[in-house]
Amino acid sequence: MYRFESDYLEGCLPEILKKLQDTNFEQTSGYGRDPHCERARSLIRIACEAPDADVHFLVGGTQTNATVISHILKPFQGVLSTDTGHVNVHETGAIEKGGHKVLAIPGKDGKMDAHSLECVIESHFTDPGKEHTVQPGMVYLSFPTELGTLYTLKELTQISRVCTKWGIPLFIDGARLGYGLVSPSSDVTLPDIARLADVFYIGGTKQGALFGEAVVFRDKKMSDNFRYTIKQNGGMLAKGRLIGLQFEVLLENGLYFKAARHAVSQAILLKEAFRNKGFDFLTDSSTNQQFPILPNEAIEQLSTDFSFDIWRPVDAGHTAVRVCTSWATTDDAISELVRKVQGL
Amino acid sequence: MYRFESDYLEGCLPEILKKLQDTNFEQTSGYGRDPHCERARSLIRIACEAPDADVHFLVGGTQTNATVISHILKPFQGVLSTDTGHVNVHETGAIEKGGHKVLAIPGKDGKMDAHSLECVIESHFTDPGKEHTVQPGMVYLSFPTELGTLYTLKELTQISRVCTKWGIPLFIDGARLGYGLVSPSSDVTLPDIARLADVFYIGGTKQGALFGEAVVFRDKKMSDNFRYTIKQNGGMLAKGRLIGLQFEVLLENGLYFKAARHAVSQAILLKEAFRNKGFDFLTDSSTNQQFPILPNEAIEQLSTDFSFDIWRPVDAGHTAVRVCTSWATTDDAISELVRKVQGL
Amino acid sequence: MYRFESDYLEGCLPEILKKLQDTNFEQTSGYGRDPHCERARSLIRIACEAPDADVHFLVGGTQTNATVISHILKPFQGVLSTDTGHVNVHETGAIEKGGHKVLAIPGKDGKMDAHSLECVIESHFTDPGKEHTVQPGMVYLSFPTELGTLYTLKELTQISRVCTKWGIPLFIDGARLGYGLVSPSSDVTLPDIARLADVFYIGGTKQGALFGEAVVFRDKKMSDNFRYTIKQNGGMLAKGRLIGLQFEVLLENGLYFKAARHAVSQAILLKEAFRNKGFDFLTDSSTNQQFPILPNEAIEQLSTDFSFDIWRPVDAGHTAVRVCTSWATTDDAISELVRKVQGL
Amino acid sequence: MYRFESDYLEGCLPEILKKLQDTNFEQTSGYGRDPHCERARSLIRIACEAPDADVHFLVGGTQTNATVISHILKPFQGVLSTDTGHVNVHETGAIEKGGHKVLAIPGKDGKMDAHSLECVIESHFTDPGKEHTVQPGMVYLSFPTELGTLYTLKELTQISRVCTKWGIPLFIDGARLGYGLVSPSSDVTLPDIARLADVFYIGGTKQGALFGEAVVFRDKKMSDNFRYTIKQNGGMLAKGRLIGLQFEVLLENGLYFKAARHAVSQAILLKEAFRNKGFDFLTDSSTNQQFPILPNEAIEQLSTDFSFDIWRPVDAGHTAVRVCTSWATTDDAISELVRKVQGL
Repeated sequence: MYRFESDYLEGCLPEILKKLQDTNFEQTSGYGRDPHCERARSLIRIACEAPDADVHFLVGGTQTNATVISHILKPFQGVLSTDTGHVNVHETGAIEKGGHKVLAIPGKDGKMDAHSLECVIESHFTDPGKEHTVQPGMVYLSFPTELGTLYTLKELTQISRVCTKWGIPLFIDGARLGYGLVSPSSDVTLPDIARLADVFYIGGTKQGALFGEAVVFRDKKMSDNFRYTIKQNGGMLAKGRLIGLQFEVLLENGLYFKAARHAVSQAILLKEAFRNKGFDFLTDSSTNQQFPILPNEAIEQLSTDFSFDIWRPVDAGHTAVRVCTSWATTDDAISELVRKVQGL
Repeated sequence: MYRFESDYLEGCLPEILKKLQDTNFEQTSGYGRDPHCERARSLIRIACEAPDADVHFLVGGTQTNATVISHILKPFQGVLSTDTGHVNVHETGAIEKGGHKVLAIPGKDGKMDAHSLECVIESHFTDPGKEHTVQPGMVYLSFPTELGTLYTLKELTQISRVCTKWGIPLFIDGARLGYGLVSPSSDVTLPDIARLADVFYIGGTKQGALFGEAVVFRDKKMSDNFRYTIKQNGGMLAKGRLIGLQFEVLLENGLYFKAARHAVSQAILLKEAFRNKGFDFLTDSSTNQQFPILPNEAIEQLSTDFSFDIWRPVDAGHTAVRVCTSWATTDDAISELVRKVQGL
Repeated sequence: MYRFESDYLEGCLPEILKKLQDTNFEQTSGYGRDPHCERARSLIRIACEAPDADVHFLVGGTQTNATVISHILKPFQGVLSTDTGHVNVHETGAIEKGGHKVLAIPGKDGKMDAHSLECVIESHFTDPGKEHTVQPGMVYLSFPTELGTLYTLKELTQISRVCTKWGIPLFIDGARLGYGLVSPSSDVTLPDIARLADVFYIGGTKQGALFGEAVVFRDKKMSDNFRYTIKQNGGMLAKGRLIGLQFEVLLENGLYFKAARHAVSQAILLKEAFRNKGFDFLTDSSTNQQFPILPNEAIEQLSTDFSFDIWRPVDAGHTAVRVCTSWATTDDAISELVRKVQGL
Repeated sequence: MYRFESDYLEGCLPEILKKLQDTNFEQTSGYGRDPHCERARSLIRIACEAPDADVHFLVGGTQTNATVISHILKPFQGVLSTDTGHVNVHETGAIEKGGHKVLAIPGKDGKMDAHSLECVIESHFTDPGKEHTVQPGMVYLSFPTELGTLYTLKELTQISRVCTKWGIPLFIDGARLGYGLVSPSSDVTLPDIARLADVFYIGGTKQGALFGEAVVFRDKKMSDNFRYTIKQNGGMLAKGRLIGLQFEVLLENGLYFKAARHAVSQAILLKEAFRNKGFDFLTDSSTNQQFPILPNEAIEQLSTDFSFDIWRPVDAGHTAVRVCTSWATTDDAISELVRKVQGL
């Protein structure tokens, strides 16, 4: 059985395991106050071309989203997100548990559009009875989106401008950031992200680390007291260096991007296989997640040897599935699946 | 510099690192639905002599406390804890962020006493205006306590009886459970804990794992839907197997207890050294945390070669410090510190 | 200037003022433990034909919604509501502040439909990854809806059946309950509501009281400890009798329904005036709220002498407005507005 | 039966009832946007000698405390209060439900002392591990306290200075403000309160209104967006004018102070009666609440004709009780109780 249902099926990049081994008996302070975290922070600031950025490490994605949002919003504010956004759909109400409404905006292919965004914001602030509704307090988007799509630099710039104009911070969920940045369809760089977002994160969990997300604040004023917020939200790892040293490894020698590139190349081979066979896609993705729409019998046939996610029914006879690759996807797995698709 | 300020200074037991290596390229389902978690659950049920227990894995202590408490309490209920309890003092309000008051009861040496506990509960439920105050909804205690002390089996049994009588669940924080169970002063076993607590956890982070806590519910009725609560509280690790396989290793061949025994023996060597030198202690601990009260000059002298926690001033010239050992504390470190104490 | 922008423009029914006067120097216990509240509870149980119902008094609508929802839901659960539901739109995130997501379902004319409701519930509970999303924990609907529309007895019965089948409580917001029950288009009675809803409220604020909502639980098991929840949510009025005595007055001699009937008759005169003039409506309402769609110039003309709510633009030249009547709307006001509409 | 168990046993001052009557058919905007609220705001600003103050109206005390605290604190901050403070004891966890810990400081006679306060604040901010504990974010005190005691102007000034020095807002709960200000033992004026507190409220409920509390912010920067917070916390009364017009009446011609003076004089007659009989007091109160310590048989004897609050047992044979007077306490009731005490 070859598995493609997610990008966190395996452990981690061997380089990370080696680092764990090499540093195992070092004695370091807890809670992210150690030389590995310091060095990782520094490498991240360099990679982001953001010498003043404030970098913090958290364990997982939902935790990171809930923690950042809790830190930024006032109690009566909500976070603007597309309806398909991770914070709106797949976090069991972690944002609401923190007291905040997710203000869902209809998206297109999982993406928010700057104009609709501004309309929503403007219509709130010009409403004489606005205090009866939740105040938009920040904007959340994922790069890439949950549907594998990408914002262009122009689109991101427009959204960022709306945010700046209205004084509303922009938060970019980068759980799969690397897979987006290395995509052949992307014209966005890590420094672009660091410049356009008020806060974003570089995902580790889905990009070759055992776990860990690196949150980057452009401005220390916004991250003031953030360590309190991390602790309160259960995100302050006692052996904090574990995340620090993973990001050290990922950021050294471009390993993060190299691993991402591997995943995306593998995904594009699959994309071509599905397309050549005449299948449509839910979205046009050039990242590590592909959403082909398959006849239900095809799904049944493939399922004997391959696992993937059933995304959603499209019509009576067809269903969109999600096929993910990762830093660990083998050539073997790809060629087997390609062969099988060709033979459908 | 030999460091004694906490029990999470190093990485993990080498056996765990080896397991990570050996399993790195396995493909498994995420979120704790994998064979390693299943096997760890089974080993835990056996060690607890609790074949019906429901076992879940979380990442760290604050997260575990906040998640379990959020799951059990109704909104208008609070958790009873000694005033020095971790949930009352050292979690940056994580419990309150979840909406619940910590109802602090004065403790003695960090311990709660069954009689005072019952008085508090009874006085609430017999108050005609009780709805103006927070309803006691569960009892929280740590074994060992934050001050290294231990409940006897009799004390735990009495507390458990009060809880049962009033229909209030008992939750035992076992972040350092092993260090308590193996203490020469303890008459409590793991099956005792599993029988007396409605829910408790076996701490990994401070006991030789990289991270991870195993939450054990005696009754599946209480843990119904607990996976929702874990996810909502940001505690559901994508690569959940990482915790599962660590507990597999810890529970196999008694490694968990062996590592704990090592730490406690080392701690008792230090205890004797301080006692022989005539120093008093904040509490009489027979676990891996020792709280000697030292003259301030002695602290200064020791600080050049050893790190430890400044706990709190006792009088103008003396301060209680915390000295911790762990699974990783070397004989060298101990003999150096013993020698230095002798020479004070 | 005649005002029609809401149904809470005036003070209260004169009978209530008189009662306030007559009872002013009585000394009674606080917090709803007084003879007036007791008698009001009893009158409500009789009117509902629900001798076992548990009745509580709160001050206002948002508070009532937030309090009831907080009492019923578990932390990881959300409340199902149409997208236009008051809890989803007009409560500044009070529900989310309480920790819960509003699970919005697209409505038709502000109404939920039993079949769509069941699909949402079923698709949650049959999802293998359901713990990554918010669990539906209760259903909220308003009678009449925010758009003045009414559920038929059959529709309510179907929704109630879905709720019963899935073990999900049904909560009916009755802020304008009377205006719905007395509508000539309604086949629903107060006992029907009390039988079909697990919990609902009889609105006072918008129906002739100074303030106050009477929450009715069908089953005391569900309202167990509800007084704690009221107090915690800031809804326990010190001089609780003030709400009790208002409901005494409202429920005596059918004053509640009489006042509501007055408002609805007045509204229907307006409806006819708008319809005779050829105007369309946003919804077909037979309650005290009317939503005619007017040419923008007509709105301008009317605004010199009449106030009403601008609801939302319908197209470039037309806007839906909300015109409300109440127990206090005078014949004068109605005939002036009718005349003006005819003359447009 | 003469009742003394609280200061909210009756309706309201007759002048308020008259105003309700006189204004009943006025049509006004909802939610505190009406001429009565505007005028009340203006009268309050004048009485406070605070022309820039921002004034808002809420319904009750717990609601006001929870709303103000929610507005001011960041999520990881708590509110400092004496251990007997209302927010710590008698609000069923409303503050914690809002996400915040009450940081209890031992009080003396219900009062906080500036020096202890500063020690707590300083020790937090100088702790290197401070992010593991709740950050002090505001100071809460009551004037008078829950035990009827009063801060002197000097004490309040010292506390205010500590707050200013550390940048921590001071919030004064004035549920019984009038009873404190008119006390013969007080050297504090309303303008003093308005100058020393960042935010405080003038209690209506316990001072002759039907209900209502007037929140006064010294600085509009702090109250920015406060209407959102009110609405979110269920405190925005639809017929907001009801509170406005009550404060209009209370502030006109010094009625508020006149009514308070009546209550305090009556209380002092009782105090003298108890003292002359040789009884001790829990605290030395010169406000409308008296806390005599009575032999248990005396309590039994008095209870046949008088109601009061059982406060707490003092020793096996004695119990402290609370006896309250109010604007409505009659001379009859006082002379009866005085006579009965004399005859004990």
